[in-house]
Amino acid sequence: MLGKMMHKQLTIGSLIEHAGRFHAGTTVTSVETSGETVHMTWGDIDTNARRLAAALNRLGLEQGARCGTIAWNNRRHLEIYFGVSGGGFVCHTINPRLKAEQLIYIINHAEDQVLFIDTTFVPAVAQLRAQFTEVKHIVVMGPRDADIAAQIDGVLFYDELLAAETGDFDWPDLDENLPSSLCYTSGTTGNPKGVEYTHRTSVLHTLGGNQPDGIGLRARDTVLAVVPMFHVNAWGTPYIAAAVGAKLVLPGPNLDGVSLAKLIDAEKITVALGVPTIWMGLLQGLEETGCTAASLERTIVGGSALPTVMIPTFRDKYGVELVHAWGMTETSPIGTLNQLLQKHSTLDSDAQEKLREGQGRAPYGINLRLVDDAGTILPNDGKTEGNLQICGHWVIDSYFRADDSALTADGWFNTGDVATIDADGYMIIRDRSKDIIKSGGEWISTVELEDIAMSHSDIAQAAAIAAKHPKWDERPVVIAVKRNPSVTEAALLAHYKGKVASWQIPDRVVFVDTLPLGGTGKVLKNKLRESYDEVLLED
Amino acid sequence: MLGKMMHKQLTIGSLIEHAGRFHAGTTVTSVETSGETVHMTWGDIDTNARRLAAALNRLGLEQGARCGTIAWNNRRHLEIYFGVSGGGFVCHTINPRLKAEQLIYIINHAEDQVLFIDTTFVPAVAQLRAQFTEVKHIVVMGPRDADIAAQIDGVLFYDELLAAETGDFDWPDLDENLPSSLCYTSGTTGNPKGVEYTHRTSVLHTLGGNQPDGIGLRARDTVLAVVPMFHVNAWGTPYIAAAVGAKLVLPGPNLDGVSLAKLIDAEKITVALGVPTIWMGLLQGLEETGCTAASLERTIVGGSALPTVMIPTFRDKYGVELVHAWGMTETSPIGTLNQLLQKHSTLDSDAQEKLREGQGRAPYGINLRLVDDAGTILPNDGKTEGNLQICGHWVIDSYFRADDSALTADGWFNTGDVATIDADGYMIIRDRSKDIIKSGGEWISTVELEDIAMSHSDIAQAAAIAAKHPKWDERPVVIAVKRNPSVTEAALLAHYKGKVASWQIPDRVVFVDTLPLGGTGKVLKNKLRESYDEVLLED
Ligand SMILES: Nc1ncnc2c1ncn2[C@@H]1O[C@H](COP(=O)(O)OP(=O)(O)OP(=O)(O)O)[C@@H](O)[C@H]1O
Ligand SMILES: Nc1ncnc2c1ncn2[C@@H]1O[C@H](COP(=O)(O)OP(=O)(O)OP(=O)(O)O)[C@@H](O)[C@H]1O
Ligand SMILES: [Mg+2]
Ligand SMILES: [Mg+2]
Repeated sequence: MLGKMMHKQLTIGSLIEHAGRFHAGTTVTSVETSGETVHMTWGDIDTNARRLAAALNRLGLEQGARCGTIAWNNRRHLEIYFGVSGGGFVCHTINPRLKAEQLIYIINHAEDQVLFIDTTFVPAVAQLRAQFTEVKHIVVMGPRDADIAAQIDGVLFYDELLAAETGDFDWPDLDENLPSSLCYTSGTTGNPKGVEYTHRTSVLHTLGGNQPDGIGLRARDTVLAVVPMFHVNAWGTPYIAAAVGAKLVLPGPNLDGVSLAKLIDAEKITVALGVPTIWMGLLQGLEETGCTAASLERTIVGGSALPTVMIPTFRDKYGVELVHAWGMTETSPIGTLNQLLQKHSTLDSDAQEKLREGQGRAPYGINLRLVDDAGTILPNDGKTEGNLQICGHWVIDSYFRADDSALTADGWFNTGDVATIDADGYMIIRDRSKDIIKSGGEWISTVELEDIAMSHSDIAQAAAIAAKHPKWDERPVVIAVKRNPSVTEAALLAHYKGKVASWQIPDRVVFVDTLPLGGTGKVLKNKLRESYDEVLLED
Repeated sequence: MLGKMMHKQLTIGSLIEHAGRFHAGTTVTSVETSGETVHMTWGDIDTNARRLAAALNRLGLEQGARCGTIAWNNRRHLEIYFGVSGGGFVCHTINPRLKAEQLIYIINHAEDQVLFIDTTFVPAVAQLRAQFTEVKHIVVMGPRDADIAAQIDGVLFYDELLAAETGDFDWPDLDENLPSSLCYTSGTTGNPKGVEYTHRTSVLHTLGGNQPDGIGLRARDTVLAVVPMFHVNAWGTPYIAAAVGAKLVLPGPNLDGVSLAKLIDAEKITVALGVPTIWMGLLQGLEETGCTAASLERTIVGGSALPTVMIPTFRDKYGVELVHAWGMTETSPIGTLNQLLQKHSTLDSDAQEKLREGQGRAPYGINLRLVDDAGTILPNDGKTEGNLQICGHWVIDSYFRADDSALTADGWFNTGDVATIDADGYMIIRDRSKDIIKSGGEWISTVELEDIAMSHSDIAQAAAIAAKHPKWDERPVVIAVKRNPSVTEAALLAHYKGKVASWQIPDRVVFVDTLPLGGTGKVLKNKLRESYDEVLLED
């Protein structure tokens, strides 16, 4: 006997419907690719998303067809999120910073039938277009433009498509287990892999991820999604903002510190989300501009390890709390968030600070465990390092178009990260298993070495890698970008003394002008290893 | 093609499993029926709930069997919530303040096979037992007691049942659409009706109801569930507290203002939930005891209309924010909560205050509309009164053991409440449709008349009813309890001047010593009408 309650489907359409119904007047601000800032409302977004869904039906698209986007964070991209998924199609967000061959691979692998592109990407798409095997329609996100029309044969214009529709399209009551969106991993460790979310997992991630100890958005918040909309759905921010009726600010293409500092003050941002490199840039931007970020209460920081020195800097200088979070494309992405427990309130402030540096604990909906390479479950004692595995309501089962399950025999997803978990469930990422340094049988965490380097005031950025070593197999080498040109290798190596065991101190420091970053702002250590892993053999 | 994400069932077992896994050390405090206060942990509750589930299996209970509870808010009741539902049985919470014939009717209608009872109810159950048609086991919530064993033949003792089990029972992976719990309505307007929740609706209510603009609990909170666990699952508080790992305080049988004031200060409560009469009592209790409620940040108030005068009193005297909420047994119960939008921050404080008096707006997961008696949809202009209808993820489809749907032809549940909704979705309950006064074709809101009466400092409580009238069909009469014995009918009637239109001023005030309250603390207006609806005819 099944229960006797209504059974409503958990759909993306229901999220935007709610925003249109209960938050129609709330602002959505968008910095356009042109630089112009436009103010719309959730009511406008709902109407335009309905128009778009109607337009896609009119184009003859079949339910479930993939529609790619190559776009910045802006209001049309937001309308596409809801119009495509809500209309029963699959929204495939593509990282525009991918190399040409990766773009072609992903678009063809996803079998994208429509491609929505920002004007920025017109030249690139015009050039690659012949190699897209399934794309039927290219839609430029803007009004008709003769120049663009001349570059791409048969191109459609977003604003024209919408103008032909009324906006009274009804969101279909889709099966919640149908796919809603598709995102490929960042490609930090190899080729990107596709993860296809369902309506259900997206809505559960919205509700489960926005608990007060999670992202924690309210209608009174103004949220800035710095994390790109092509990076795991901007960590779910558009969905959460719609569900709670927060004011949403989409920053467009310019994510440098100065642009962000000005935007935060102009729009009175209360909460912002992004990767660590963004907040490093913001610190500089705040200093340069004299902006105060007075409205900013907290930022959610994840995607790679938060340099711990940033926590007190932001708190003491700007009154901004940094909330460290961990997740993956494969986990929608929220896996853990660092919010303290009640018992921690009795700890002294140093101990509390220390706790806040880790990646935090899992919300309801997520479970974590550590296993060794043989799959044996390891203790949660805060010391034992192991392979981090995850399961839960918004975790992958298998990759897009893969026949095999991505899970262990007992149903867990292996993250590829090495971590510790303590008795309270607080998790600390020690490394990626591909990055961790195996020196004479002992493990050395590159995350920890990088964090120490970046706590040196003369160092702007640092990455630690395993360099080949004739005796120890691997030894740590730090690749660093100077903040102060006078800093020396010896000074940085001295900085490690007393902070790690002596055998964990790097063998060398190599100074470089920039670190190679992937499209989501992560250091590409495989690139660094290609360049520097023989640096100790050369001596 | 369905999506390729994990599909985990949304079950009550998964809630307590999470608490046991990530919040095992967090305290659950219980005031026992004996008066003793015990401190346990979520880890203990999880283990005991597993023991209970194992014990019910050992008793040979079939999946889906109903287990009734007649109990106060205490830790064994909490274990029963999770052990019964998590184990695949249905937890049927029964209002102990029901009359004997209602108790018998409900227990037989539910076909309860097990009855868990607090020691308080041993005499009553011993007397009625022969009339329970399906009950196989009566379990007294405590250790073996010879006196009790002598009163109820074959009685089982909770602590003995649990002692026989190990606690390593695995929560079954139940179909989320199976029933988890059963609750009958308060019986304010007639006989209570059964509402059977499913695992899915309970978990969605937990996640959707605990958004930051909802109940908003965090792990750092200490939450006091004053609202009874037999009243719509204490509004979901046990489930939410488990999901977020909040410290939970269960106050036992004594809900008088003095006991609550002391408990709030002793346990440093941050959030409390209950009906308005409880908070009226608390105000007196705080004054009597000199307790300060310094830790208390907010209370969630619903179940009947919040007397508006309480909002500034609590805020100005005690720094406590009252959050007005509306819901029903049929809606799990959260329908609306009153949290302001960002645009309201520019209103002056009087206007903000005024907005906070209403019942608030719907969270994602709930939709509301107004219709007239013919079913025509009415405008949301903040003025037009209509029948409030609701639909959403945790709303009833049909009553327990009813063959007919409880919904309109187009799938909405008619609440029986009369309300207005404004353009932002803010809803104000004007009355129950059975209570509203129809005076010469015009409607008069009893809620508003009561609120004005209770804003008079000499009035403790008030209820307005429709009294029969030879000319106007119905006219308002106020039944009031004095706070100051010297207050007169004329003084109270004068208090209405300028606050409502002159034709809405009540025709009479009848002073009484107490108002008849139902088991959940609501005024039984049908009782009052039985006694007083001819009071104007007698003149
Ligand atoms: N707070 C964090 N601290 C440390 N590492 C993090 C954090 N958040 C995310 N990560 C890293 O990012 C990974 C997930 O990133 P994402 O899904 O964007 O793709 P990727 O793993 O970088 O790329 P690919 O899987 O294609 O190599 C995690 O497995 C983890 O290694
Ligand atoms: N904040 C509130 N303001 C005014 N009325 C409220 C509020 N919250 C709940 N109510 C009233 O309580 C009703 C729901 O209560 P509940 O489900 O406990 O049973 P009941 O309606 O009192 O009893 P029955 O349906 O058996 O007559 C709502 O329909 C509404 O009339
Ligand atoms: Mg990865
Ligand atoms: Mg009712």
